Amino acid sequence: MVKFIEGGVVAAKGFKAAGIFCGLKKNPLKKDLALIYSETLCSTASVYTTNLVKGAPIYVTQEHSKNGVAQAIICNSGNANTCNDNGIEIATKMCDLAGKALNIDPQNVLVSSTGVIGQKLNIKPIEDNIEKLVGELSSDSKASEHAWEGIRTTDTFKKEVAIEFEIDGKVCHMGGICKGSGMIHPNMATMLGFITTDVKISPSMIKKALSENIIDTFNMVSVDGDTSTNDTVSILANGLAGNKEIVSEGEDFNKFKDALNIINTYLSKAIAKDGEGATKLLICEVLNANTKKTAQGVAKSVICSSLLKAAMFGADANWGRVLCAIGYSGEDVDISKVDVEFESEKGIIPVCKNGAGIDFSEEKAKEILLEEDITIRVNLNSGEYKASAYGCDLTYDYVKINGDYRS
Amino acid sequence: MVKFIEGGVVAAKGFKAAGIFCGLKKNPLKKDLALIYSETLCSTASVYTTNLVKGAPIYVTQEHSKNGVAQAIICNSGNANTCNDNGIEIATKMCDLAGKALNIDPQNVLVSSTGVIGQKLNIKPIEDNIEKLVGELSSDSKASEHAWEGIRTTDTFKKEVAIEFEIDGKVCHMGGICKGSGMIHPNMATMLGFITTDVKISPSMIKKALSENIIDTFNMVSVDGDTSTNDTVSILANGLAGNKEIVSEGEDFNKFKDALNIINTYLSKAIAKDGEGATKLLICEVLNANTKKTAQGVAKSVICSSLLKAAMFGADANWGRVLCAIGYSGEDVDISKVDVEFESEKGIIPVCKNGAGIDFSEEKAKEILLEEDITIRVNLNSGEYKASAYGCDLTYDYVKINGDYRS
Repeated sequence: MVKFIEGGVVAAKGFKAAGIFCGLKKNPLKKDLALIYSETLCSTASVYTTNLVKGAPIYVTQEHSKNGVAQAIICNSGNANTCNDNGIEIATKMCDLAGKALNIDPQNVLVSSTGVIGQKLNIKPIEDNIEKLVGELSSDSKASEHAWEGIRTTDTFKKEVAIEFEIDGKVCHMGGICKGSGMIHPNMATMLGFITTDVKISPSMIKKALSENIIDTFNMVSVDGDTSTNDTVSILANGLAGNKEIVSEGEDFNKFKDALNIINTYLSKAIAKDGEGATKLLICEVLNANTKKTAQGVAKSVICSSLLKAAMFGADANWGRVLCAIGYSGEDVDISKVDVEFESEKGIIPVCKNGAGIDFSEEKAKEILLEEDITIRVNLNSGEYKASAYGCDLTYDYVKINGDYRS
Repeated sequence: MVKFIEGGVVAAKGFKAAGIFCGLKKNPLKKDLALIYSETLCSTASVYTTNLVKGAPIYVTQEHSKNGVAQAIICNSGNANTCNDNGIEIATKMCDLAGKALNIDPQNVLVSSTGVIGQKLNIKPIEDNIEKLVGELSSDSKASEHAWEGIRTTDTFKKEVAIEFEIDGKVCHMGGICKGSGMIHPNMATMLGFITTDVKISPSMIKKALSENIIDTFNMVSVDGDTSTNDTVSILANGLAGNKEIVSEGEDFNKFKDALNIINTYLSKAIAKDGEGATKLLICEVLNANTKKTAQGVAKSVICSSLLKAAMFGADANWGRVLCAIGYSGEDVDISKVDVEFESEKGIIPVCKNGAGIDFSEEKAKEILLEEDITIRVNLNSGEYKASAYGCDLTYDYVKINGDYRS
């Protein structure tokens, strides 16, 4: 029994959060520094970008979470602290400042940054405001929103979720915030996700749960095919729910994974829907593939097609572009078995059967595709594996946001 | 000694061409049917899309060029003859009609189509106009332009080139036309290239030359990352230049390959520059890679980055996006050795050294990037291999062209 609740990253027992403006962004009405803190030590795991160019904070977070234990996350927006010659030094300093102000070991602080790359991050505004940031820590549900504001760039809506569920007869909570593809300075989109829970789970099992789930959720999101240098998803579990510690696979671990999947799927869809310039959430659902890899590869190829993304912006039932993207996915597909249909709140319309076009009402198709949430369903009719990928349409605003002179 | 000349696909001895309106497009002021014909049998080779979804004409051309010999190419625009249940039948019929009207074996006719996919191609307009098409065959240089008009979709300028060179003491010619990414019905971009030459060369050697060269030219073009279902490049060599037949590697073969490289590079750049909605040609030149594969992979990754393409549209020297695209290319690169610079007619500006930003004048960078032809030069400083990829910027018009309702 899973219930959606308020509170985001402070929904779980013992977590506090804060977000303030310290001066890294230009506009003082925005926030640019966030902190998430647990009263007690947490099991932790993080996953990072596969880009060879990695933000300096990633190296520091990797080092600090090596022992599977952490207690706080500090994150700034406005500067990605990437491709600088003093990046590691600055990221380490951020942990030192947070650790000192929180009176905890700086080794138990994780760090992330997002924003422009290739410019040195000025530590002074953070140094000057760290006490203020710690002073604002709160378990009020508004605190999660403040932290979210501190990590956002050009996101247009809040990306926060929390749920309540049971493990081992104990009431447990899990919540998360994330930022999507946007930028303070037209530069690099960064996906950041922070998840907190009061479930008691060992470092090795939390790592296993996150690594496995990320493949089906965050890794299935694409806004524009550009893999950022700073992508990070971190989870903290402080165990205050009081359940018997999860140390191996089994019923409790499965419940934990299900909860994590709900949180991560919700956040993934939110990121896709709020892709830069996007007007629509696109979900490509691939059914009956011969392998999981095929299902995922096809779903991602479709969701990444610039031509399809532009067609969806125009509410154009251009299924040929779906077939085209399946064809160049590199996956093993029998095109003559492929069916395609579009779905939204307005209904479902099949457009392709056995790899060839079928008659359909263009008016009905347009009515369906004018909605905001569109599912492109691809049935490969070749097996029993499935996967979903999350993306958005390609719009004038995407070009505008990314084509404007930096200023 | 290579000289650029007029004439496109009729520059070589013994070739004629024609292009007419037969009724596949809606606007009778356009052309939609083209024919290229050699007085004598030619050695031939073709390369095709790697998309699993292939246009029906590709299967027929593959069959007809299996013996390495052909004499004519018929091509229509307005309908891609793809994803139909009668595609092969119609493509075969096109060859039959052309063969009969030309009084040659239909097995020696190659066929291509471009346009909307998933709709049946009506053979009637072609049948009714095939005699007219053959009647208009001419070796006048205007004939090549007419043929080009017959294969174009939304191309905005003519893509035609021809050169004169010497092999074995004989004056030889080679010319080509191609269409870039556009569509008559917002659907599938198709890249088609047709090359003619009077060089005498065996089918196996012409196949070798084309297969090898395509990797460095047409395969290094990307407008939007969507690999079409109908891409085809075909070459016809009728041997009328009178050189001793090229049947093996050696000096003459190298001269042939050099000529082919000039033609294909020219046409590849023209396609990139005229990408849908494009305002700029982008060339990513990768130097000093450890392998050829690395050089090509990095160049393609950079040229395909939506973020970089949008930045170039905005004349924004956002080199972080170049580094980001290198980082996710999947190639083996030591980022700490990477240098990046931008070049145009207005000059060269280094922006990144050893993987980190360097100070540069934003004004000078903007002046350079406001030009139409931009080179993004990436020095990997790790070996001696190089490659270039050809692309274009991402603009409002790309979204407009591809997002409009089909109508």
